[in-house]
Amino acid sequence: MRPYAFGVDIGGTTVKIGFFETQGNLLKKWEIPTRKDMGGSLILSDIAESLQQECKARKLKKDDIEGIGLGVPGPVLEGHIVNKCVNLGWGVIDIAEEMRKLTGIENIHAGNDANVAALGEVWQGGGKGNKNLVMVTLGTGVGGGIILGGKIVPGAFGAAGEIGHFTMTRHETMSCGCGKKGHLEQYVSATGIARKAQELLSESGRPSALRDVQYLSAKEVFDCAKNGDELSLEIIEFVGDTLGRALASISCVVDPDIFLIGGGVSKAGDMLLDTIQTHFKKYAFHASENVKFALATLGNDAGMYGAVKMLL
Amino acid sequence: MRPYAFGVDIGGTTVKIGFFETQGNLLKKWEIPTRKDMGGSLILSDIAESLQQECKARKLKKDDIEGIGLGVPGPVLEGHIVNKCVNLGWGVIDIAEEMRKLTGIENIHAGNDANVAALGEVWQGGGKGNKNLVMVTLGTGVGGGIILGGKIVPGAFGAAGEIGHFTMTRHETMSCGCGKKGHLEQYVSATGIARKAQELLSESGRPSALRDVQYLSAKEVFDCAKNGDELSLEIIEFVGDTLGRALASISCVVDPDIFLIGGGVSKAGDMLLDTIQTHFKKYAFHASENVKFALATLGNDAGMYGAVKMLL
Repeated sequence: MRPYAFGVDIGGTTVKIGFFETQGNLLKKWEIPTRKDMGGSLILSDIAESLQQECKARKLKKDDIEGIGLGVPGPVLEGHIVNKCVNLGWGVIDIAEEMRKLTGIENIHAGNDANVAALGEVWQGGGKGNKNLVMVTLGTGVGGGIILGGKIVPGAFGAAGEIGHFTMTRHETMSCGCGKKGHLEQYVSATGIARKAQELLSESGRPSALRDVQYLSAKEVFDCAKNGDELSLEIIEFVGDTLGRALASISCVVDPDIFLIGGGVSKAGDMLLDTIQTHFKKYAFHASENVKFALATLGNDAGMYGAVKMLL
Repeated sequence: MRPYAFGVDIGGTTVKIGFFETQGNLLKKWEIPTRKDMGGSLILSDIAESLQQECKARKLKKDDIEGIGLGVPGPVLEGHIVNKCVNLGWGVIDIAEEMRKLTGIENIHAGNDANVAALGEVWQGGGKGNKNLVMVTLGTGVGGGIILGGKIVPGAFGAAGEIGHFTMTRHETMSCGCGKKGHLEQYVSATGIARKAQELLSESGRPSALRDVQYLSAKEVFDCAKNGDELSLEIIEFVGDTLGRALASISCVVDPDIFLIGGGVSKAGDMLLDTIQTHFKKYAFHASENVKFALATLGNDAGMYGAVKMLL
């Protein structure tokens, strides 16, 4: 194997680029802006230029580079076909073919960013040492990635690991971001947690420390809960029950070794993890009851790591 | 590849044995009783003897046989370790090792019977031509199997595909066979459908053709629904909604090409399939909305087919 590789995580605002030793050490990371004008047609050439500059500065030749891995915020089929990526302005493109033309490097692999992040966590993060992992990312929305036998499960339509759109109830009247109703994301994303707090506060006059908070957010709910605020604790129970129930069902499908929780909401740490686990055991099929739970550890770097792992 | 193979499906009452051409033709099938006395210690030697008799009658040598595939009604780890099989009386055994000793044949693979049946359907049944399939078997209970990239997903604890234990609600008071509450099996198995009918009939005086039925069963509910009985139609809608909702969530996890519906209840045919599909679209994430739905076609032979496919 060649000694170095690039891991690239393409986001809607910035592109995160990592220069790695292929053994798994991240030697340097930097960001460039994602230029979305002109239908996103400049993004890949911007990336190629940045990689070439880095190679030049380090006096590296093409033969020193194992390849380029790419995480993309949309569905990726067969490891190289991006099947529309609305927030970059892309239609259907063969991203590997394009990057080969731009860089002359042969070994190019691409994957959906959430799936790639899960792979990064299995390789060098909170999931290290496991072969079968389900990662759940609790941020503004809820994303996820499934790793089985050490490999990304992409899905027939690029939708595997879209755990945020798991249906939790048939009785919801409000819509998920995707247009359907009752999806997991509506209840356990940062947005969903704040909404639940807002609902509970306005439907009764119950006292709560949350009433003194300037901007109601998931972080405030966890902070107040840690200080013993009853209404906030109730919300955390609801979040844990909802997530525990979804993960118990996911165990019946792919039965992973470990669930990894990441994203901004996961900063709540053990309080969140313990609540999820308690409720998980209540619903789970007995064989899967002792699955491990852990926090993701690579944060925003997970995508770069996973992008490189795809090449190896 | 050698020309022949045996596919063996070990059930609680009988063992189904198939003699196959490795191209996929089932040349002969027969059954022997499952002798569960003496801790199930006679089962494998009975199978070995039956296979040897067949080889003798056909004047086949060991070199003509590619291998023996085995479906087992319990969790199987790494393709050969049976991790307790309560209804056969087995503890933890290396089934491949045992069969090698008994037959002298090297290539032995084993899998959980529901997973193996799913593999059979992908190879020569209703899922033929697809690489990613989720099979749901609606019988007395609800079973399932997941095939990704043409291979069985076994799970870390042998519990992948245990779709019957998907949690549908947190508001159930009755227990599933597994001891937990609110699992899919409680609503869409033959038993669950009959229970739902019983509930609806007893909680009101509504007229229904089901009141004239001697033994309330899922089959009677579908038959009455086909004749326009309103209460029966309501039950079918409930079954379709519940299954559609579970399968929509499964799509967010593994995103298959096709869902295959099998088991006794699937004899209801298109009426069942159409109702599931309608409700599925209501809940599913848009990318997976056009997944295919079909009926399983191999019936009780699916396990034998899948057992052989594991060897190839």
